[in-house]
Amino acid sequence: MKKAAVIMGSDSDLPIVKKAIDVLKQFGVPVEVRVLSAHRCAAQVSEFASNAEKNGFGVIIAAAGKAAHLAGAIAGQTPLPVIGIPIKASALEGMDALLATVQMPAGVPVATVAIDGAANAGYLAVQILAVGDGALMDKFKAFRAEQTEKVLQADEKIRGEFA
Amino acid sequence: MKKAAVIMGSDSDLPIVKKAIDVLKQFGVPVEVRVLSAHRCAAQVSEFASNAEKNGFGVIIAAAGKAAHLAGAIAGQTPLPVIGIPIKASALEGMDALLATVQMPAGVPVATVAIDGAANAGYLAVQILAVGDGALMDKFKAFRAEQTEKVLQADEKIRGEFA
Amino acid sequence: MKKAAVIMGSDSDLPIVKKAIDVLKQFGVPVEVRVLSAHRCAAQVSEFASNAEKNGFGVIIAAAGKAAHLAGAIAGQTPLPVIGIPIKASALEGMDALLATVQMPAGVPVATVAIDGAANAGYLAVQILAVGDGALMDKFKAFRAEQTEKVLQADEKIRGEFA
Amino acid sequence: MKKAAVIMGSDSDLPIVKKAIDVLKQFGVPVEVRVLSAHRCAAQVSEFASNAEKNGFGVIIAAAGKAAHLAGAIAGQTPLPVIGIPIKASALEGMDALLATVQMPAGVPVATVAIDGAANAGYLAVQILAVGDGALMDKFKAFRAEQTEKVLQADEKIRGEFA
Amino acid sequence: MKKAAVIMGSDSDLPIVKKAIDVLKQFGVPVEVRVLSAHRCAAQVSEFASNAEKNGFGVIIAAAGKAAHLAGAIAGQTPLPVIGIPIKASALEGMDALLATVQMPAGVPVATVAIDGAANAGYLAVQILAVGDGALMDKFKAFRAEQTEKVLQADEKIRGEFA
Amino acid sequence: MKKAAVIMGSDSDLPIVKKAIDVLKQFGVPVEVRVLSAHRCAAQVSEFASNAEKNGFGVIIAAAGKAAHLAGAIAGQTPLPVIGIPIKASALEGMDALLATVQMPAGVPVATVAIDGAANAGYLAVQILAVGDGALMDKFKAFRAEQTEKVLQADEKIRGEFA
Amino acid sequence: MKKAAVIMGSDSDLPIVKKAIDVLKQFGVPVEVRVLSAHRCAAQVSEFASNAEKNGFGVIIAAAGKAAHLAGAIAGQTPLPVIGIPIKASALEGMDALLATVQMPAGVPVATVAIDGAANAGYLAVQILAVGDGALMDKFKAFRAEQTEKVLQADEKIRGEFA
Amino acid sequence: MKKAAVIMGSDSDLPIVKKAIDVLKQFGVPVEVRVLSAHRCAAQVSEFASNAEKNGFGVIIAAAGKAAHLAGAIAGQTPLPVIGIPIKASALEGMDALLATVQMPAGVPVATVAIDGAANAGYLAVQILAVGDGALMDKFKAFRAEQTEKVLQADEKIRGEFA
Repeated sequence: MKKAAVIMGSDSDLPIVKKAIDVLKQFGVPVEVRVLSAHRCAAQVSEFASNAEKNGFGVIIAAAGKAAHLAGAIAGQTPLPVIGIPIKASALEGMDALLATVQMPAGVPVATVAIDGAANAGYLAVQILAVGDGALMDKFKAFRAEQTEKVLQADEKIRGEFA
Repeated sequence: MKKAAVIMGSDSDLPIVKKAIDVLKQFGVPVEVRVLSAHRCAAQVSEFASNAEKNGFGVIIAAAGKAAHLAGAIAGQTPLPVIGIPIKASALEGMDALLATVQMPAGVPVATVAIDGAANAGYLAVQILAVGDGALMDKFKAFRAEQTEKVLQADEKIRGEFA
Repeated sequence: MKKAAVIMGSDSDLPIVKKAIDVLKQFGVPVEVRVLSAHRCAAQVSEFASNAEKNGFGVIIAAAGKAAHLAGAIAGQTPLPVIGIPIKASALEGMDALLATVQMPAGVPVATVAIDGAANAGYLAVQILAVGDGALMDKFKAFRAEQTEKVLQADEKIRGEFA
Repeated sequence: MKKAAVIMGSDSDLPIVKKAIDVLKQFGVPVEVRVLSAHRCAAQVSEFASNAEKNGFGVIIAAAGKAAHLAGAIAGQTPLPVIGIPIKASALEGMDALLATVQMPAGVPVATVAIDGAANAGYLAVQILAVGDGALMDKFKAFRAEQTEKVLQADEKIRGEFA
Repeated sequence: MKKAAVIMGSDSDLPIVKKAIDVLKQFGVPVEVRVLSAHRCAAQVSEFASNAEKNGFGVIIAAAGKAAHLAGAIAGQTPLPVIGIPIKASALEGMDALLATVQMPAGVPVATVAIDGAANAGYLAVQILAVGDGALMDKFKAFRAEQTEKVLQADEKIRGEFA
Repeated sequence: MKKAAVIMGSDSDLPIVKKAIDVLKQFGVPVEVRVLSAHRCAAQVSEFASNAEKNGFGVIIAAAGKAAHLAGAIAGQTPLPVIGIPIKASALEGMDALLATVQMPAGVPVATVAIDGAANAGYLAVQILAVGDGALMDKFKAFRAEQTEKVLQADEKIRGEFA
Repeated sequence: MKKAAVIMGSDSDLPIVKKAIDVLKQFGVPVEVRVLSAHRCAAQVSEFASNAEKNGFGVIIAAAGKAAHLAGAIAGQTPLPVIGIPIKASALEGMDALLATVQMPAGVPVATVAIDGAANAGYLAVQILAVGDGALMDKFKAFRAEQTEKVLQADEKIRGEFA
Repeated sequence: MKKAAVIMGSDSDLPIVKKAIDVLKQFGVPVEVRVLSAHRCAAQVSEFASNAEKNGFGVIIAAAGKAAHLAGAIAGQTPLPVIGIPIKASALEGMDALLATVQMPAGVPVATVAIDGAANAGYLAVQILAVGDGALMDKFKAFRAEQTEKVLQADEKIRGEFA
């Protein structure tokens, strides 16, 4: 199976980003975790991104806050799909990171998820890898069925409380 | 090769969405185009989405404006990766569509691109399908090299003008 | 009397949504409470919404946060008036939920109240049911008179303090 | 049948507000149209609002731009449900009118529709009056079926074009 | 001397509004304090506003949050200058109240101060009354000189600390 | 009668600011018009502001766009009430000018009107000068009555059209 | 004299960026102009930035729109001061570019000017180079005096018109 | 070596601004710290700014919140480069201060850093002074290398944890 990479711009982002790693592990996707800053170690970002495909990665998740350039910097140097997590790390509630992640120019998309939406970055990576992997797709469908089941149970419970 | 679907919420979105279709055709990806409204024909959205995987689709692009629910409505009913294009269709410059597309709850991500970013939705779909398709990946790399070349030529030209 | 439905996208919304239920009960309106997610159980949402009118409901209140699609998803599948409560559930202070709830396309309105404005969703539901129910209208007028009285008492008290 | 009122803050709002009047007429709802400014003729607003119920109205639509107080001013003086249309009439793209209309205090809700969403104000008024009027409800259901039909035809057409 | 009125939309606004009252008292301006809600007791607002000039008021301060209509409702019913304080009372950080207070239509201005800027509402009321009152103007100038002096002392102190 | 000053940050603001001048002239208020930039001629701003009171001014209107410092710069150097007009002069629809004008620190208020609200700046200046001038107050009341009359005529006309 | 570099993300930015080049030439600052995209030719950006200091540059101006990463990408790879011009190039009025340019992490500042503020980027570059260059500083002071003179002439003219 | 000035609008800004002072001291740049308010002591701001160049300063840092005029007021009265720190000091999360600092008119730029970005204001001042000072430039390069090293160590550590 192709690997997923999870890159964060600063190790202070780990508490949020951890959810993406957990999701990937829960689905048995091999994952490598890195701290690489678009602004503080551009050379290492470049080296990682330009070799990611031949190093066996299938998808890359990048998380950054404020003027969040990391996902875009990686996306510009790899043909792999890149998922961006805008981190709420400033006074502006993550709106700066959202716009800096999603408003990419033509030819270099970043698949953006919600502000601090690390779990969804993990799920989206699973879905992307599952396109060519029937077993992973089946696991994802099972997860979805379970998720539905949980809502139905909550529904059952609350209907009872207010009946 | 797996197919891509391009769904728009209204046929008035076609002038924007057309760029996604063009990109997919340029890369030889088989594409089906639909007009399906999350609010005006939920049953048909449901039918399409819940059968998309077994009907041979690998990725779905959905475009909608204002309270843009289409991408999310589809994402909730298919295990396939769903790419959302927020369309600028109201007084609010597309900010309403962006937030309604990207701020999805855990377990149901939408891979969101820029406001009116239809071309990038196409490129992202190509990248996702290329994860398991070496020939398509090679085409995408060639596109990227060409894109770089165009910038270098523009650079050459402008350096000359201002030298 | 026609019933009111109160639907929330997640049981974590209950502390806010509770105020709508309380208002409806205080006015003696029969109410059913459900947890139904537009993204996690679209089939159940569809079943509920498309049968709501014939099941004796007169008005539906739907509450959701972030990319708040629930009210719109219900509105698209019932002819009944649907009241939307945008829940503040993300980094963006509820602005995402407000725009995702209020900016609906023509033909499928959602009667939107303030962010976290669950009490007002309850009052508005009462007002809608009272259009054809003189006794309920009288109760609502009595409530309003009482509300005015409370302001006048506060006025009396503060005038005294600062006289 | 109960009447609907359509009130605009200025006659310059008529080109937008006209869509609400047209929808009401199309459904055969008797409608009265007024120009009443919350700031320039508060006495007349008060007189209209406090007598609206006994004058045979069932629902009131109010449209205003900028610091849009009209819907709220009316809502505070009638027990009838009041629908607010935020008009885009300033530099701020209607965001000022949206917030001034939707963020009402507890007990005095305004059922807010999209910025410049006059058609939806009309549809919502129809839905509210239809709660106690089976014939009107049937007309609204027919309209919805027709609306769905139009999307399916557009879908048919575009599928053909891109097949 | 003409009196100043300080009107708040709810007695829960008193902790903020108190600063305006304090400023007025500190300058010896006679002040009356009221709780009057534009939406819950429009008749009383109307009575107060339309009689304010002949009752000896020279300026009116009005404070309200969310869809903050109070200052505008008063301004429309008195020829006196009305100062509006937008109160931060919702999820939206007071931006709703600011826009609902400042974006008034032509002919009915509200002299708007900063969000929660009650002290400045008091100072502005003093400045307005001082236009025709040399003794009050002298007091205000003395206050300003004192204010400058305080900054210069802070400057002195900090220059010392970092020298 | 005390004079009013109308100061604009750039002569390109004149088409907007003209409405304030017109209002003042229509009420017979003596007015002086200046172009003074807070950033390009701070010395002249200082000279004007610090002498305005003794030069017979009773109120100052200041208009500026973008990082709109002019009203605040003047307010800090005169005890007279200063009215600020935020001019829409940038990409940001005047929101930058609004916030730069209204969010003043304690002790130095600017009486802010709507974005591009020059007419209202004029009316507010008239209201402030009228506090101590019965004849001017009577003129303002006559203007208000006329304004009400115009709305009532528009109401009459539109009621007829849709009756 | 040290050189200034003016880098734009796309040659479509030239009409805006031209004003920076003009300002630099008007002050006799040697300038090199480049088109380099942070996302489409990261290697060339890296090569340029990491050699800029030893190639005789003293300051770098970078202009980009949307998810504007260019200034930050350069700033991370050179010790020289980098000036960022956020270009208005999307639906969001340049707010995306402003936040993506200004909200940089500690240690890697970008000296940000106004949206589309290319002339000011030029002036700021001149001011930075003038810190160690008395002749250039004198030219800048002369420019400023001239700028003041222009405002005073406009003031003269308008005072005359309205006297 | 030329000196740096650090000016804050209020001594309550010191906890934020302190980081700029610390950075400057860490690089051995002589620094003077002042409290000067654009609105409360304009004369002192003017005196400081217009003499700053001849008093041996090479760069000025100014920090202010809300309607943040300080940096602009200084920039208009000195030819030196001025760095602005928008302070988050109001309900609006610093967005008011950001826009009031960055949106300067042509000819009077303020080099704006992130909201509360005082450390970066210090680094930018160092970079500006280093343009003409090889030793300082070397220190800054060493700092940058160290900063990169810290990220690489964090990367090393986290790769280990998740390997």
